[in-house]
Amino acid sequence: MTAFTPKDPDYARRVRDSFSRQAFMETLGARIIHLAPGECDVEAPYAPGLSQQHGYFHGGVIATLADNAAGYAAFSLMPADSSVLTVEFKVNLLAPGRGERLVSRSRVSKPGRTLTVSHSRVFACDGGEERLCAEALVTLMTLHGAVDGPAEAGAQSRAGA
Amino acid sequence: MTAFTPKDPDYARRVRDSFSRQAFMETLGARIIHLAPGECDVEAPYAPGLSQQHGYFHGGVIATLADNAAGYAAFSLMPADSSVLTVEFKVNLLAPGRGERLVSRSRVSKPGRTLTVSHSRVFACDGGEERLCAEALVTLMTLHGAVDGPAEAGAQSRAGA
Amino acid sequence: MTAFTPKDPDYARRVRDSFSRQAFMETLGARIIHLAPGECDVEAPYAPGLSQQHGYFHGGVIATLADNAAGYAAFSLMPADSSVLTVEFKVNLLAPGRGERLVSRSRVSKPGRTLTVSHSRVFACDGGEERLCAEALVTLMTLHGAVDGPAEAGAQSRAGA
Amino acid sequence: MTAFTPKDPDYARRVRDSFSRQAFMETLGARIIHLAPGECDVEAPYAPGLSQQHGYFHGGVIATLADNAAGYAAFSLMPADSSVLTVEFKVNLLAPGRGERLVSRSRVSKPGRTLTVSHSRVFACDGGEERLCAEALVTLMTLHGAVDGPAEAGAQSRAGA
Repeated sequence: MTAFTPKDPDYARRVRDSFSRQAFMETLGARIIHLAPGECDVEAPYAPGLSQQHGYFHGGVIATLADNAAGYAAFSLMPADSSVLTVEFKVNLLAPGRGERLVSRSRVSKPGRTLTVSHSRVFACDGGEERLCAEALVTLMTLHGAVDGPAEAGAQSRAGA
Repeated sequence: MTAFTPKDPDYARRVRDSFSRQAFMETLGARIIHLAPGECDVEAPYAPGLSQQHGYFHGGVIATLADNAAGYAAFSLMPADSSVLTVEFKVNLLAPGRGERLVSRSRVSKPGRTLTVSHSRVFACDGGEERLCAEALVTLMTLHGAVDGPAEAGAQSRAGA
Repeated sequence: MTAFTPKDPDYARRVRDSFSRQAFMETLGARIIHLAPGECDVEAPYAPGLSQQHGYFHGGVIATLADNAAGYAAFSLMPADSSVLTVEFKVNLLAPGRGERLVSRSRVSKPGRTLTVSHSRVFACDGGEERLCAEALVTLMTLHGAVDGPAEAGAQSRAGA
Repeated sequence: MTAFTPKDPDYARRVRDSFSRQAFMETLGARIIHLAPGECDVEAPYAPGLSQQHGYFHGGVIATLADNAAGYAAFSLMPADSSVLTVEFKVNLLAPGRGERLVSRSRVSKPGRTLTVSHSRVFACDGGEERLCAEALVTLMTLHGAVDGPAEAGAQSRAGA
C-alpha cells in the first residue's frame, strides 16, 4: 500500500535495530507500532514523568516522536550501508497532548539521495478517540557508507537526532 | 543588561514555579541556570537515558531544551495572570550533542501582546569547551487571564509545550 | 467535499476581494483557481521575470504561493469582520520549479479562534505532468474586528503577509 | 570583522554574478548592499507592485529577501566550482513591512561541507529608522562540481531557490 520500493530488503530489521539502540526511546517508553517503506508510526504511553505543568504530555515529547518517526520513515528507504541524521524539523503544536498515549504517524513526502523530507502527524489518543495534536515537517540526511551501529559510535551519524 | 522591562516584577518566581511543575524537566534533569527579562538558559547534564544510538544527546532532548528555554524567556515578559503556550518551533541540528551537558541560551527576539518570538542557541559543553549544536526559532502565545498553576489543570495552557 | 463549515457564507467574495487587492499577486500573475471552505489553490504561469539563475521559478515565488494560498484557505473559515495575518511559515523546496506554471494546493490542517495552521503542497506543472516541488506549514492569525479592506490601510492586518 | 575564511578568494565576483542572473531580483528591484565572507545584506526599495492589500511590502517579498540573502551569505563560503541550493527555510513575520525599503541582513550560523545554516533578520526602513520585521533560519546545500552559471541551466542547482 506504500508508494515506495526500499533499496534494502532488510530495512525493517535495520530500522528496529537502530531504534532499539536509542536509550531515550526507552526513557519515553516509545515503540514502533507500524513500519513499511517510507512509513513509520511511533507510540508512547502516558507516564507522569513525561508531563508539563498541567499534567499533559510535554511538547518536547510530542516533538521528539514527530522527529523520530519521521527519521525512521526516511531510514526505511535508505541503503543498507547508511545512517540517518535529522537536519532540522518544524513542528506546530495544535492541541494539548491529553490522553493515554501519543502516536506519531510519519510518511516520507520526498525521498532523495542525500536529503529526504518526511511529514508527521501526531495524535493524542484517549479511549477510542484520536485527536490531531501536532504536525511536523522534518528534513533528514543520508550518510552513505556509515553503517548505523555500535561500531560507528565515533561517527557523526545520528538517527532521529 | 536586558533590553526588556517585565510587566510582572515577580516574574522570576512565576517562571521558576512553572518550570518546577514540569515533570518532564525532572526526567531530563534540566534546570534554569540563567533568568532575566526576556532571557532564559536551561541546562541538562548528560545521562545515558537521554542518548541516541551513538551515545550522544538525542535530538529530541536538544529540541526540548531549545523550546522550553525559549518559552520561559517569553513567559518572563508576560503579565502575572497569564500562561504561556508554544505555538510552533523550528530547530536546526548543527552538530552532534556530544558532551557532559547541554545548555540552551534563549532570548526573546520580539515580544507581543498575543505572540512572542524567541531565538535559542543550544551548546554541547565538554570540559571547558562549548560547541553550538542547535539553533531554533520558537513562537509562543500568551494566554491572558489563565494563571499558570495547579488550579488551571483543566485549562488549555501549556508552557514550553 | 470539505470538512469545514464557513462562519461567513459570503467567504468566497471576501477572499477574492482581499486577493485582488494584493498588487504583488498581479506582479506574479497569480490567481485563485480553486476555493472552498478551508481550501485554496493559487496558480502562477511562468514568466522570465520570476526566474532564478537557471531560468526556473525562483524559490521566493514558490514560497510566496505556498504562503498566500495557505493564508486564503485559512481566511475562508474566518468570520466576516476579520483580517488574516501570516505569523510564520516553513517551506521545504523539494525539486526545481521547472515548468509552465506553479500551483499551490493549500488546505487547513487545524482551524482555531486565534490561530489556524494550513498545509501547502506546491506543484510545478509541465505539459500534463505535475511534480511536487515544495511543501509548507503555515501559521495564520485571525484579527477579529479588523475588516480586511481599503479602509483598514492603517491597521496592522495583512493577508498572506 | 567576519569569523570566516572564504575557500574561494574570488567569492565576491562569484556571488554577484549569480545574483545578477536571477531575473526575479530585478523584478523586486533588489540589490546586494553588503558582502563579506559568511555575510550578505540585500535591499529592495518600496514599489507599489510589491505590496499586499494594505499597501505594505508583501510577506512573500520579505521571505524572498530573507532566503536570498541567506543563500548568498552561504555561497560566499563555498568553493569556486559549486552551486548553492535552498533546502528549506522558516520565517517569522514580526511586524508589518512598512517603509521605504526592506533590508535583509543575513549571516552564516554554521557552515558545513554539504549543508550550511544561515540566520536572517529583515528590517523595514523608514526615514532614518529601522524596524525588525522578520527573522528566518535557512538551510542551504552546496552542490560540489556544479559551477553556478549559464552553462548549468540544465542542472538542478538553484541559488536562493
